[in-house]
Amino acid sequence: MSKPLRVGLIGLGTVASGVAQILLRHRDRTRERAGRDVEITRVAVRDLSKSRDVEIPSDILTTDAMSVATAADVDVVIELIGGISPAKELVEAALNHGKDVVTANKALLCEHGDTLFALARETGRCIAFEAAVAGGCPIIAAMSQSMTGNQITSLAAILNGTSNFILTQMLHNDASYDDAVQEAQECGYAEADPSMDVKGTDAAQKLGILTQLAFGERISPDQFPVQGIDELELEDLHFADELGYAVKLLATAKLVNGHLELHTQPTLIRKERPLAQVDGPYNMIEITGDAVGKAWFSAMGAGQMATASAVVADIIDVAVGRAAITFPHLNLWQTEEKFQLQKSEDIERRYYFRFHVEDRPHVIADIADVLGRNGISLSSVMQKEAQIESPKAGEPPVVPLVFMTHNATEGQLRAAAIELDSLDCVQPPWLCLPVSDDQA
Amino acid sequence: MSKPLRVGLIGLGTVASGVAQILLRHRDRTRERAGRDVEITRVAVRDLSKSRDVEIPSDILTTDAMSVATAADVDVVIELIGGISPAKELVEAALNHGKDVVTANKALLCEHGDTLFALARETGRCIAFEAAVAGGCPIIAAMSQSMTGNQITSLAAILNGTSNFILTQMLHNDASYDDAVQEAQECGYAEADPSMDVKGTDAAQKLGILTQLAFGERISPDQFPVQGIDELELEDLHFADELGYAVKLLATAKLVNGHLELHTQPTLIRKERPLAQVDGPYNMIEITGDAVGKAWFSAMGAGQMATASAVVADIIDVAVGRAAITFPHLNLWQTEEKFQLQKSEDIERRYYFRFHVEDRPHVIADIADVLGRNGISLSSVMQKEAQIESPKAGEPPVVPLVFMTHNATEGQLRAAAIELDSLDCVQPPWLCLPVSDDQA
Ligand SMILES: NC(=O)c1ccc[n+]([C@@H]2O[C@H](COP(=O)([O-])OP(=O)(O)OC[C@H]3O[C@@H](n4cnc5c(N)ncnc54)[C@H](OP(=O)(O)O)[C@@H]3O)[C@@H](O)[C@H]2O)c1
Ligand SMILES: NC(=O)c1ccc[n+]([C@@H]2O[C@H](COP(=O)([O-])OP(=O)(O)OC[C@H]3O[C@@H](n4cnc5c(N)ncnc54)[C@H](OP(=O)(O)O)[C@@H]3O)[C@@H](O)[C@H]2O)c1
Repeated sequence: MSKPLRVGLIGLGTVASGVAQILLRHRDRTRERAGRDVEITRVAVRDLSKSRDVEIPSDILTTDAMSVATAADVDVVIELIGGISPAKELVEAALNHGKDVVTANKALLCEHGDTLFALARETGRCIAFEAAVAGGCPIIAAMSQSMTGNQITSLAAILNGTSNFILTQMLHNDASYDDAVQEAQECGYAEADPSMDVKGTDAAQKLGILTQLAFGERISPDQFPVQGIDELELEDLHFADELGYAVKLLATAKLVNGHLELHTQPTLIRKERPLAQVDGPYNMIEITGDAVGKAWFSAMGAGQMATASAVVADIIDVAVGRAAITFPHLNLWQTEEKFQLQKSEDIERRYYFRFHVEDRPHVIADIADVLGRNGISLSSVMQKEAQIESPKAGEPPVVPLVFMTHNATEGQLRAAAIELDSLDCVQPPWLCLPVSDDQA
Repeated sequence: MSKPLRVGLIGLGTVASGVAQILLRHRDRTRERAGRDVEITRVAVRDLSKSRDVEIPSDILTTDAMSVATAADVDVVIELIGGISPAKELVEAALNHGKDVVTANKALLCEHGDTLFALARETGRCIAFEAAVAGGCPIIAAMSQSMTGNQITSLAAILNGTSNFILTQMLHNDASYDDAVQEAQECGYAEADPSMDVKGTDAAQKLGILTQLAFGERISPDQFPVQGIDELELEDLHFADELGYAVKLLATAKLVNGHLELHTQPTLIRKERPLAQVDGPYNMIEITGDAVGKAWFSAMGAGQMATASAVVADIIDVAVGRAAITFPHLNLWQTEEKFQLQKSEDIERRYYFRFHVEDRPHVIADIADVLGRNGISLSSVMQKEAQIESPKAGEPPVVPLVFMTHNATEGQLRAAAIELDSLDCVQPPWLCLPVSDDQA
């Protein structure tokens, strides 16, 4: 049997203590699968006095993370502190000191993947990052190994478990957005500040990483439409439901006429599709390949043990030498400009519009006129009798009005939006969501 | 760049010609992913004169399969003829001649995996077999690499696309079993003789392979309950639907009180579960791991290009050297008797019973009495008014009668079955199906 693999853990928070639990409580099982012992030799934390739900000998605990990243008795550094700095400097130091790196840090990879992957190639080391996207769902392995017989043509994915939990709570428990967010916080699915999750940033970062793997292109979230779930009202979920759709925060990357189209938005998905049926804090990735057709992968998108499961798989991949083979073959962050990014304004989709309008004649005609003049034609209209009190005292009550459109471009939408904002009969804010076609 | 990988194809039927299409039409893409050229240097068929949907130079075509398995200019042998013999002899010859092997042959692995894997270990070669289970769905990679941080505690899977297609056609098109089988044959999903598929044999063989990966145990289909879909009537799908269940041919392997429980049977699954929502020729595997919780994998379970996608991924794994690492770490077919197989008669589940009975008093009581005396208690009864003509001329009409039971053992069931068979009021054949609990 080979020498033990010596692990340096940076961080001992939610995910890292899950990793430590698996490695310490299942030594034999891990040895059998890794072909050698896997030993935690060093652990860095911020606060030595904090009590931990896993027992780490005090002589291997330190607050000096850099000493772990560079230690002679560490073969692989597991970066689980999150954020950009000092995570970036620690990963760089580890690579420069001849260590492989395992990380769950999507923010870091999304922002600095190019530098870090280049450095890893230069130093002959590898970076494994299964846990950075979709938690316990092994989508990185699937894309980088199992789909190599395919050109992937589309990805459509639920990548943020927090948002999906919130949307599920709203619809199933008739809860407002705010109540559902609070519930998510109480269950440990949302941070005190949930904005990275609910504003779509987290999902868009993960989409950036998957886009690298599927299409070899580096595209950052500021280059494509990103919209969060925080503008949704409970009634939108009900209207969509009535129309035969579920609303999910959907991250999409697909080839359309040779162009690469990306967006991360709350999206109407026909209820029959597997993506529409994913409830709670789960993730799902639907991949279409030119050979395999459609394939689906689903598991918990976050959470201590599900994420730790992915990190441990990466550690074992490093231990057996598989990561050292997989990584250089990924050609990650070495863009060859195979595919051009579709300009946002040219992205063409069907849309769902929801307005709160004054309950008087001609309102439908006024809105339809604005949409029509901007080239957006309607496929259906749903006017609800349910009345909502006008936010302006003394004014007549308002009613919800829902339109579904035929295909229109994001450009047409933006032009129409300016006019819609200035319509007197429409109460701000109104909402517009894309509808996913059945292909993605 | 390294030397080309030289591929010897044995067979050029459905799957193999899909593989050849990918390798020949996407040379550049394959080279990029494999890190070297992948060349087809030899191809064996039965009939040289058959026209093929892929162009193979006639000088590399032969009917002498053994010459391909042993050729000096072949690095990896792709066995795609199916069946036990001569597939087994060819794989053995290939390994003995220092070649790696890729195969989609579940029948071969299920029956002779132990011998073949031992020989591969002995000769220092590897056998890759992603395509042998669940077609385009990369479940072998998922289990052997991505789940290594877990003890898998249960597998519940739809592994036969043909059966799933037939069940879907029956329910959605109100088709009889026979009509649905014919439809499956016309669509190319079922063989002229569909018995391997509809009798559960194919799914049970695949479950045997997955059980090796998940639990390290070698269990053959004759050691656990295997039941096909060929006993089902359309009405059973409707009754189950009414009760809130879908009926799927479910292959299950799970740990129950430290024992390993296996079965492959048409099973009632609550409609909310992802497994119940898989329609048509798709496969799905639901894995439960002690760290990750539940994870789902789904794709086409068969078909030319979906299966070829899996074979090509294996070829690329061989090309980059990943297969040579993964294979020896699998410890496949090296049983250590970690888990004991639960005896069939001790398997405990809830059941669905459907009888056709004479429409007269006391019938329910008579049947309930038989069940009760055998320790099987009822949770619900559904008597249908719809009348069916008695098969015996001049006899009174019969009506369908459905019972759902509380937990009972397979042993209790078998004892009851003998008595039920001899009840005058029950028209043969009656049907009994297990109900899946929510855990698996
Ligand atoms: N939580 C999830 O479900 C999940 C899922 C997928 C991916 N991830 C990713 O996994 C990573 C870790 O997330 P987490 O939820 O485990 O975070 P966390 O619970 O906040 O843990 C962070 C850990 O890092 C330590 N730390 C922070 N800065 C440090 C420094 N400068 N030096 C030494 N130690 C430092 C903290 O020490 P103290 O304990 O002493 O404060 C803590 O143990 C992030 O990149 C996150 O995006 C998390
Ligand atoms: N079809 C699927 O969707 C699917 C899915 C998953 C796994 N699989 C597995 O893949 C394997 C191949 O299936 P398939 O559907 O591709 O089979 P197939 O269409 O029947 O093709 C078999 C091929 O093998 C050739 N062959 C048979 N015996 C031979 C011999 N002794 N020497 C040389 N060539 C011989 C045949 O030659 P001729 O063409 O000259 O007759 C034919 O090209 C099987 O193990 C099957 O279980 C198939």
